[in-house]
Amino acid sequence: MRVKCIVSYDGSQFNGYQVQPNKRTVQREIEEALTKLHKGNEVKIYASGRTDAGVHAKGQVFHFDTPLTIPDGRWPYALNSLLPDDIVIISAAYVQDDFHARFDVERKEYRYMINRNMMVDVFMRNYEYHYPFELNVDAMKRAADLLVGTHDFTSFCVAKTEVEDKIRTIYSIDINEENQQIIFSFIGNGFLYNMVRILVGTLLEIGQGKREILEIPGILEGKDRKLSGKTVPGHGLYLWKVYYDN
Amino acid sequence: MRVKCIVSYDGSQFNGYQVQPNKRTVQREIEEALTKLHKGNEVKIYASGRTDAGVHAKGQVFHFDTPLTIPDGRWPYALNSLLPDDIVIISAAYVQDDFHARFDVERKEYRYMINRNMMVDVFMRNYEYHYPFELNVDAMKRAADLLVGTHDFTSFCVAKTEVEDKIRTIYSIDINEENQQIIFSFIGNGFLYNMVRILVGTLLEIGQGKREILEIPGILEGKDRKLSGKTVPGHGLYLWKVYYDN
Repeated sequence: MRVKCIVSYDGSQFNGYQVQPNKRTVQREIEEALTKLHKGNEVKIYASGRTDAGVHAKGQVFHFDTPLTIPDGRWPYALNSLLPDDIVIISAAYVQDDFHARFDVERKEYRYMINRNMMVDVFMRNYEYHYPFELNVDAMKRAADLLVGTHDFTSFCVAKTEVEDKIRTIYSIDINEENQQIIFSFIGNGFLYNMVRILVGTLLEIGQGKREILEIPGILEGKDRKLSGKTVPGHGLYLWKVYYDN
Repeated sequence: MRVKCIVSYDGSQFNGYQVQPNKRTVQREIEEALTKLHKGNEVKIYASGRTDAGVHAKGQVFHFDTPLTIPDGRWPYALNSLLPDDIVIISAAYVQDDFHARFDVERKEYRYMINRNMMVDVFMRNYEYHYPFELNVDAMKRAADLLVGTHDFTSFCVAKTEVEDKIRTIYSIDINEENQQIIFSFIGNGFLYNMVRILVGTLLEIGQGKREILEIPGILEGKDRKLSGKTVPGHGLYLWKVYYDN
């Protein structure tokens, strides 16, 4: 039986999602909990994709196969009781055998949180990027509109990115301001390595007046990481939701 | 010169506020930072009161004396650069020599945060009490009204409390519900050891129908800790604001 799980995690204390030797990662913690639940028989999980060190997930998705017949609604409790408290399984459901958490992704939503107050909010220090500067939100929104659509995002990913096809579609970029918090929401069919963090970094430079809105088309066409803005820190980023076709 | 500071801290990683041998406490961290700033000359701080292990502060107040003449607005930055990231000095101001952060307190506000969602919010796990149960909020509000006023709160503090005078005045108790979060706000002229946590625990038992609203006067009159409800965990509690007479 194949089980699809939605999981949230606080990325602060992890070296990212993917298993690495001798490092605390989300995948390792979940696989260890599942293996314990299966009396030592190793269980592998397959997620929608990785997240980097410090990056959070509100709704990451993974699947695994199991011979156990625990009711859907009990899986989260069974797993959460074996998991550390910075990983919480939100829900679980039995799915068809051909469902794949990575290959079947239709869309992904990432959010990036910024706080512009003069002083850091101590309770949010690991959950938003403290950026106490003036920003022209309207200019950022207009620049964001130029990024929506199907483009080659070579300029907006880590230079050494190994994926060959760097064409991705961004369906929407929303920028919402509430009090001194700004929330960026990106929905796309896929995102390259560090892409959201470089997009936000570039938009912030436009918001600060360090770049012009109309530089965006040239940055995309130039296909060169050096043309875009700084990579903002991982702790403001959330894998918010993964969408599948059903 | 006497300086009054407002400080927020995340209590999760502290053994409370007050200095204890070989323990990480808020007072110790701040005194060490101040001593560093004063080139090794020891500086003592005086806060409005203690907070327990795990308890947070949004607006704790303390004062200290200094021969340094740093402008008010620079003190927070000077101190924050020497403090760990779970303590943030919000503001500082020079005050009269006879101001005392503890003796001059007029009122204090504490808040207690509860989340009733089925699943823990992983990002709030150290900042609210997860309590996924039905609650009659109206009953809790009516019981709270019976606690407001000047009473002997012996039944609502730790049995071994050494303070002799257990009469305190609660000016207001507000209970606000938003989505699945409930925020209790208490304003009073002073609070005994664990008093807010026992008050909330008792109100929750009323909200769950385990106790009657009209038990409150009898609990107060009985002056016995055994009569009141459970002590809720410290990680949902915030010293929110300290009020002085000026």
